Amino acid sequence: MSAEKQFVPPFASGAGALSGASAHRRTVLIAGGAGFIGSNLARRLLAQGDRVICIDNLETGRSANIEGLIPNPDFAFFLHDIVEPFTVKGPVDRIYNLACPASPPKYQRDPVHTLKTSFIGGLNLLSIAEKKHARILQSSTSEVYGDPDISPQPESYRGLVNTVGPRACYDEGKRATETLFYESHRQSHVDVRIARIFNTYGPRMDPEDGRVVSNFVVQALTGQPLTIYGDGTQTRSFCYIEDMLDGLTALMEADEVEPTIFDPVNLGNPHEFTMLELADLVQDLTGAKVKRDFHPLPKDDPLQRRPDITRAKTILGWEPKVPLHDGLIPTIEYFRDEIEMAQQKIGGVA
Amino acid sequence: MSAEKQFVPPFASGAGALSGASAHRRTVLIAGGAGFIGSNLARRLLAQGDRVICIDNLETGRSANIEGLIPNPDFAFFLHDIVEPFTVKGPVDRIYNLACPASPPKYQRDPVHTLKTSFIGGLNLLSIAEKKHARILQSSTSEVYGDPDISPQPESYRGLVNTVGPRACYDEGKRATETLFYESHRQSHVDVRIARIFNTYGPRMDPEDGRVVSNFVVQALTGQPLTIYGDGTQTRSFCYIEDMLDGLTALMEADEVEPTIFDPVNLGNPHEFTMLELADLVQDLTGAKVKRDFHPLPKDDPLQRRPDITRAKTILGWEPKVPLHDGLIPTIEYFRDEIEMAQQKIGGVA
Repeated sequence: MSAEKQFVPPFASGAGALSGASAHRRTVLIAGGAGFIGSNLARRLLAQGDRVICIDNLETGRSANIEGLIPNPDFAFFLHDIVEPFTVKGPVDRIYNLACPASPPKYQRDPVHTLKTSFIGGLNLLSIAEKKHARILQSSTSEVYGDPDISPQPESYRGLVNTVGPRACYDEGKRATETLFYESHRQSHVDVRIARIFNTYGPRMDPEDGRVVSNFVVQALTGQPLTIYGDGTQTRSFCYIEDMLDGLTALMEADEVEPTIFDPVNLGNPHEFTMLELADLVQDLTGAKVKRDFHPLPKDDPLQRRPDITRAKTILGWEPKVPLHDGLIPTIEYFRDEIEMAQQKIGGVA
Repeated sequence: MSAEKQFVPPFASGAGALSGASAHRRTVLIAGGAGFIGSNLARRLLAQGDRVICIDNLETGRSANIEGLIPNPDFAFFLHDIVEPFTVKGPVDRIYNLACPASPPKYQRDPVHTLKTSFIGGLNLLSIAEKKHARILQSSTSEVYGDPDISPQPESYRGLVNTVGPRACYDEGKRATETLFYESHRQSHVDVRIARIFNTYGPRMDPEDGRVVSNFVVQALTGQPLTIYGDGTQTRSFCYIEDMLDGLTALMEADEVEPTIFDPVNLGNPHEFTMLELADLVQDLTGAKVKRDFHPLPKDDPLQRRPDITRAKTILGWEPKVPLHDGLIPTIEYFRDEIEMAQQKIGGVA
């Protein structure tokens, strides 16, 4: 048996339950809670009165994303890698598994660990869900579709993934973990939800994330040429973080009246942009007059990726509302602040 | 840290190395060594002078398959589930991972365990390979292609697999484990081989395996109607066990002169038969005059599955030699003996 760490959130004592106001407060565990989506989700849940336990190994999650939350008595952070078994003291009502490096340069750094994060991390969280009778949401990904030959991709599309390619550690880890969640529901009646998350952007993205929105914005703000892979006509869809949080929480809280609620649900913005269109928009909004550097397309880079969100619309009544233009404004503001802070730090040291 | 079991084969003491004759004898670990392919492989390796360590949890492997080997001083059997970490004492030169239930009714019995057998079992064996500097072969499967829309399937075909279907626990577990082996080679230089095994048949198959060759032969020999799913026009290719052993050992022993030797290799017989043709052949060879029962096609049952073996021919000089007719004769003999023994046991008890 592995020595299982136990984490004790300050609010686990049950003291809170004594006051009438907090009698019905929920405890939500967010694995990957210091990441881009996780840290935004933590803020939203805290704002609506939930208690939040954040588990993160800070491999790609950033302490800057949660520093502001540490003083909050309803927030508890534990530095832990979900590949190692753990428990938490006290009740847990919901578990969001958002713990896995999600951008190619990051998940390719230690591919075996990426696979383990998805699969063994998923197993460890499912074990907590089972013990605590918590509902658990797995963040899957549009990458389960690989380099798709149909567009948009509905959930029934089986994908075109290379099992021995540079993206496989992420794609196949996420695919097998979908199966693990699906079977944990069928076999042990764990109340699971599976979200296939498409490209998402917004404040608290990692400026060094390596994906296109952060790349373009940071390059534009620092006066560097925009890096474009291929000829820039490949498309992506971009979902603003607030829309994504609406979708994730709607899926998590959806009742089981819909019998297929346990099956994967696409969450993303179906509005497609080419890389060149995104580059134009970023340059317009930042006012940056920079060149464009064209590089060869990386191996197994998908040429298109666009969600069919009919299922989310039908069973959750959800669809994204924020146009790319409107979402880019606060995103650019966030990156501007990040870059200024970084420059001040360098200035302070020099 | 998990408490790791250590298994000590009688030949691990190194005593054998003192005699000149055995100075160069290899030790081969076969995970799943009591299964159909594993137990046949053990016999072949022992016959050519190797020492064999057989690890099996006997979940689908059968003790009858290895009973005859127990007195052999070069054979050691350890009852163990590879999902739990373990080590073996002494040198290990080769590891064949043949440990996973492989027929749908068996791998669907405990789907979460099936996933863990592939992925965590694979991790545990890779860890032994790394420590012992052993070359390791992963038995992958034609099921990584799912329900293919091209035929035959070359290794570059990405497959059509449903991550949340009844076959997913096997298919996605095997896919993710291919990725795990591929990345263990790239990241830690483990000397891996990946065989995508297509339908194989022959002596030591489980009569209750639930797959079509064993089903038809057992039904024909016991005077029951042959069960045919769908209209029987779906095709399968069938590889005789001796051909498969030639392919597996050729892949294991192939030098690294071929730079893609670490990538998956299809092993199977490309000659296609419909279920109806197989039924005719089994009835001819057994002389059984039985009816045929038609049942609906199970969900996600592939309509065709046929290997493109160009790669195996090119890099291994391997191709199957035994026609279905010739392979079925010893297979039917084996099943006849199994059934007679089972009937004698029942007779003895009555």
